[in-house]
Amino acid sequence: MAGSTFGTIFRISTWGESHGKGVGVVIDGCPAGLPLDEADIQKYLDLRRPGQNRYTTKRKESDTAEILSGVFEGKTTGTPISLLVRNEDQRSRDYGSISELYRPGHADYCFDQKYGFRDYRGGGRSSGRETTARVAAGAVAAKILNSLGITLHAYASSIGPVCVDPARLDFSHTYESPIRMPDREAEGKALEYVKTCIKSLDSSGGTVTCQALGLPAGLGEPVFEKLDANLAKALMSIGAVKAVEIGDGTKASLAKGSENNDWYALDDEGIPYKSTNHSGGILGGISDGSPLLVKVSFKPTSSIAAPQPMLGRDGKLHENVSIHGRHDPLIVPRAVVVVEAMTALTLIDLLLLNMSSQMKYLQQIYQPPLA
Amino acid sequence: MAGSTFGTIFRISTWGESHGKGVGVVIDGCPAGLPLDEADIQKYLDLRRPGQNRYTTKRKESDTAEILSGVFEGKTTGTPISLLVRNEDQRSRDYGSISELYRPGHADYCFDQKYGFRDYRGGGRSSGRETTARVAAGAVAAKILNSLGITLHAYASSIGPVCVDPARLDFSHTYESPIRMPDREAEGKALEYVKTCIKSLDSSGGTVTCQALGLPAGLGEPVFEKLDANLAKALMSIGAVKAVEIGDGTKASLAKGSENNDWYALDDEGIPYKSTNHSGGILGGISDGSPLLVKVSFKPTSSIAAPQPMLGRDGKLHENVSIHGRHDPLIVPRAVVVVEAMTALTLIDLLLLNMSSQMKYLQQIYQPPLA
Amino acid sequence: MAGSTFGTIFRISTWGESHGKGVGVVIDGCPAGLPLDEADIQKYLDLRRPGQNRYTTKRKESDTAEILSGVFEGKTTGTPISLLVRNEDQRSRDYGSISELYRPGHADYCFDQKYGFRDYRGGGRSSGRETTARVAAGAVAAKILNSLGITLHAYASSIGPVCVDPARLDFSHTYESPIRMPDREAEGKALEYVKTCIKSLDSSGGTVTCQALGLPAGLGEPVFEKLDANLAKALMSIGAVKAVEIGDGTKASLAKGSENNDWYALDDEGIPYKSTNHSGGILGGISDGSPLLVKVSFKPTSSIAAPQPMLGRDGKLHENVSIHGRHDPLIVPRAVVVVEAMTALTLIDLLLLNMSSQMKYLQQIYQPPLA
Amino acid sequence: MAGSTFGTIFRISTWGESHGKGVGVVIDGCPAGLPLDEADIQKYLDLRRPGQNRYTTKRKESDTAEILSGVFEGKTTGTPISLLVRNEDQRSRDYGSISELYRPGHADYCFDQKYGFRDYRGGGRSSGRETTARVAAGAVAAKILNSLGITLHAYASSIGPVCVDPARLDFSHTYESPIRMPDREAEGKALEYVKTCIKSLDSSGGTVTCQALGLPAGLGEPVFEKLDANLAKALMSIGAVKAVEIGDGTKASLAKGSENNDWYALDDEGIPYKSTNHSGGILGGISDGSPLLVKVSFKPTSSIAAPQPMLGRDGKLHENVSIHGRHDPLIVPRAVVVVEAMTALTLIDLLLLNMSSQMKYLQQIYQPPLA
Repeated sequence: MAGSTFGTIFRISTWGESHGKGVGVVIDGCPAGLPLDEADIQKYLDLRRPGQNRYTTKRKESDTAEILSGVFEGKTTGTPISLLVRNEDQRSRDYGSISELYRPGHADYCFDQKYGFRDYRGGGRSSGRETTARVAAGAVAAKILNSLGITLHAYASSIGPVCVDPARLDFSHTYESPIRMPDREAEGKALEYVKTCIKSLDSSGGTVTCQALGLPAGLGEPVFEKLDANLAKALMSIGAVKAVEIGDGTKASLAKGSENNDWYALDDEGIPYKSTNHSGGILGGISDGSPLLVKVSFKPTSSIAAPQPMLGRDGKLHENVSIHGRHDPLIVPRAVVVVEAMTALTLIDLLLLNMSSQMKYLQQIYQPPLA
Repeated sequence: MAGSTFGTIFRISTWGESHGKGVGVVIDGCPAGLPLDEADIQKYLDLRRPGQNRYTTKRKESDTAEILSGVFEGKTTGTPISLLVRNEDQRSRDYGSISELYRPGHADYCFDQKYGFRDYRGGGRSSGRETTARVAAGAVAAKILNSLGITLHAYASSIGPVCVDPARLDFSHTYESPIRMPDREAEGKALEYVKTCIKSLDSSGGTVTCQALGLPAGLGEPVFEKLDANLAKALMSIGAVKAVEIGDGTKASLAKGSENNDWYALDDEGIPYKSTNHSGGILGGISDGSPLLVKVSFKPTSSIAAPQPMLGRDGKLHENVSIHGRHDPLIVPRAVVVVEAMTALTLIDLLLLNMSSQMKYLQQIYQPPLA
Repeated sequence: MAGSTFGTIFRISTWGESHGKGVGVVIDGCPAGLPLDEADIQKYLDLRRPGQNRYTTKRKESDTAEILSGVFEGKTTGTPISLLVRNEDQRSRDYGSISELYRPGHADYCFDQKYGFRDYRGGGRSSGRETTARVAAGAVAAKILNSLGITLHAYASSIGPVCVDPARLDFSHTYESPIRMPDREAEGKALEYVKTCIKSLDSSGGTVTCQALGLPAGLGEPVFEKLDANLAKALMSIGAVKAVEIGDGTKASLAKGSENNDWYALDDEGIPYKSTNHSGGILGGISDGSPLLVKVSFKPTSSIAAPQPMLGRDGKLHENVSIHGRHDPLIVPRAVVVVEAMTALTLIDLLLLNMSSQMKYLQQIYQPPLA
Repeated sequence: MAGSTFGTIFRISTWGESHGKGVGVVIDGCPAGLPLDEADIQKYLDLRRPGQNRYTTKRKESDTAEILSGVFEGKTTGTPISLLVRNEDQRSRDYGSISELYRPGHADYCFDQKYGFRDYRGGGRSSGRETTARVAAGAVAAKILNSLGITLHAYASSIGPVCVDPARLDFSHTYESPIRMPDREAEGKALEYVKTCIKSLDSSGGTVTCQALGLPAGLGEPVFEKLDANLAKALMSIGAVKAVEIGDGTKASLAKGSENNDWYALDDEGIPYKSTNHSGGILGGISDGSPLLVKVSFKPTSSIAAPQPMLGRDGKLHENVSIHGRHDPLIVPRAVVVVEAMTALTLIDLLLLNMSSQMKYLQQIYQPPLA
């Protein structure tokens, strides 16, 4: 099936493999009149670029986005925006040795079963490189949201057992931190932990939290197209994500109703607000006007340097095989902007869909013909 | 938007409010030739029926499903199957008093903001009653899966702080248990806990786990239509769900790669298997042939009997308002079959979509014209 | 596949067979706040009701629509509107004799080949009775369009060789005419022609034309989702339609550019208009602000009383088989409102989709959260 | 909205403008295991390439397709196939003079109304250049169909008033003919007619017919996703098409049932066939196993060299404006392969969708997990 398309109105279709000619995305349904140039895309892409420090893969990619269509005289035209990022530093030879083996934690066996064979070069379509296209598209979505006063911020909320302290969050530090952790104290401990993992030829899991401020109430559709349901799909579709939590998430299962309910209050000017935000900004699948809070859990990188037993296409077990290639010891740092991009893509689509929720909006926009 | 549709090939469209004339579902895309009658649907519906014991709402509904179309001479015809369940015991008067108030933890405010007004009778479309239609459709999906040897089993894995012990699981007990907990020891403690909640006019959260056995490798599409992504959306779309976890879920974020990777092994007959199942049966978004494991966290019922402050449509705060009506003190017991139904609906759709994954399948099924 | 769903935003899902329990439709995505009651639906349904005169089937159906959901206190709530029409006068015994035969011009053989068997009672899902659900949904679409000043009018433009004269059109006569022909002179000749057909146990084809006035410019999306492309699909999906023409239609292929181009002109007040309308109101797939003109050709009713040779499921030829049952000698009169309904459903969906075409519309509707 | 996507399973997303950097398409959902290389695409693209003779535009484009993804070791992998065709000979200066004018017969005014402004360079997204991407994708669809024994052939069936004689059709001549007319006698007359048009600075309309042989019975879904409905949308979405006819098309409206019904017969070996094919191979929206016949009518090229009055963005009428640029005096020759491509794309999608029509197909393909 067409598994590479996301969104109903603001719809993106991505393509590309880790070791093919490049990756890209077609954005269809972007409203006309948005100022857009390649720098807008590049700024976002740079936040996930590999080879930035010792905690990420040594693969070098400038990841330069080219806008091939959909922008005229500096503005979106309403027609498809095609973005192309050529691959540059693919070294397929790294993978020859494992072309007949199924790496643990990877989709190798699954792809072989599904398609009858697979592109064994670096994971092919299931490589993290695929997220480049998501981020490029997310940059456009984020730009629209920002223009309306909606801001997103994602960050590493934990690396292995080291968690940030919500009281110490300093978002100005997020992108100064090589591991995108906006809490200097936790960051220090986390870096120590990661070094230990690297030393033992191992890798670490972690979590990414994303918040959105300025979101209006009313986004998300009842029943299957709830805001949280769409976020869950968007975020779980990122490779290596094993859990999605909204607001209090799993902790809500431990609570009582009297603790979990967010009571309304009035501020000094008599404007209502929720005195707590256990709900994470979503009630009944619809945004409630308070900050959106979502957290995803990443498993540790499956490609570890330590030798492991592997199953061969020949049906035999191959003991102590080491995976070569250039891999991140942890996924979280580069995934932070991917989480933000997928959140932005989810929000912009529901925002545009919500325009048709009331007759009065239709009447407001509707323009009768001239004659 | 059309938020009431789920699935691409096996596509369901649900409708209905808690206090309207009924609820129902249209199933389009069910393959022809499946034996089906109303008893198949009823069996599943009975598992979520209210009024069964003191731990669920006292609302009485026989929840009888009528098949209006799509079945001829005991078999599905390939055309839409329309299922109708009439509402019987709606008492809208219970809700008159809160028609102008926004209940904490409910979607009241959100609906008002989204649509300009709302059906205030028992939550309207955002009521749990909506899940009746999901279960009716899920019964058909489950029947197909079962016919292929795929079995699903969902159960309450925790109620508040009380968790089942995986070593004590006895699935034959699940539906004997009023709270659907397949561990007699944990069940006892959980019932005590729930009684305390009821006594203090409060409610409790909990978790539901669902496993699927016999699932072939290859289900799920790379990138956005991953199996786990679709499951996450399906399950997060159930009211009151705040987290979805696959396999080890949030715990994967704490692990190292060497711990989290599931190593392949060979059994006595030389058939390969995964020696562990941290992945929960999904790698790279595609089923890997091992058991599927998914867990969802439910928040406690928002409608508690204890008085709470409520925001009015008048913008004023109304202190100490009690919610009348008949509500479950915990959502989990009746949600168990809903989780199973949504899992079944996700699996059947991806199973049918996967039929077109390889040229050889097309060649296998393809029949040239007679002449 | 899910072949019973139409539309992206304003999405309808129909169900039901000619000789089952009934037919119905779920409308999802109708904007909230539209005044709606059962009389609105009934008015439209009455225009296609059978048994009205000698030129239509003698089958008696009151075709009463029940609104099961989605309307509260006289207004649409934004949630699915489920409409149910029970079948009343089905006489399946009429069909027993042909259950093992493939009627010429019918889908009998195709259904058998596709699904392995078929519901042989009156065509089952491929019966014209299915259009009842389209008309019920179309009534809602038309009501929205009308509220914006857009009006639709469909009529029989020809019956067999007898065509209306555009100079004599009198739309006030359309629904007075038993054959929906708004030209009394042509109507007289057409009735004579139909009588001849009936006398010779035969049936007649014809055309239906639909115009829409007051349509704004800008509806329809470039490339695949053009307004005319969507109309073509919508109208060709009506049983027995063999051609769809926009504006000059097939005649455009005979013309030169200088004849076919609609030149712009200015009226007395300097307001621009197209001096001709060969385009039928659509250019480049997008409405141009002038009247929409679309014409569809219906083949003659396939069920004729005269004996015909038929192929059996046994692979043998059965000579001189007569079709019993109650059939319309011509499809056009009852199809007129179906064409109008499908046009309305196409327009409302594209109108709602067009709301997200420009950034300025988003900014116009967007409301920031309270706090 | 996302108007640039076509298909459900075999889904294509096109992008690109006539005077931008290029055009392209992403094909998602192509089954794995199809042998494919750039020559397969090129062969089809060459059939629509401009600058081939005096009857088509003088614009020079080599139209070389690059496969950017989705093919590995000469076979499709099941993941998205991205195809890129760079624009080469765009001369935007040709269009400067009409950037403030609305050309008759073009979408200029409509785009301006829809999006607030337009890409005035050669029609932008509404240019015929967009069809390059359709043809590239169609080449892949056609290759799959051919591998199953299904063959397509499209040709010019009329140019202006000159029609081919079905008795004289010689398909080996189609692509020898500069106007794609497989009837040498008609071709000669048509060329005379076209020369007259060119001489008078005018253009000509025409029709394209497409047939498909070897199509199995059962393709197409009842109600909205009928085979003919999908074909109608696919073909009407080609710029300048004003009518789509199936089988006898508009002529069916003139016929009686006894004439229009295709009676079954048995051949010498007792194999049943339809003795006529008025239906064009489709009954009840489903293929009936006989040849598919579809015809589309193209209006004459709107860009004529003769001076015309044009409306300006300033609201004023500009008399006697000539359109410069390089345009085809008739659309039909280059549209022939576009019609074939869109037919192929429609058929492959419905063929793949039909795989899930029966339980027995699912059982046939289904493979249980190893353990």
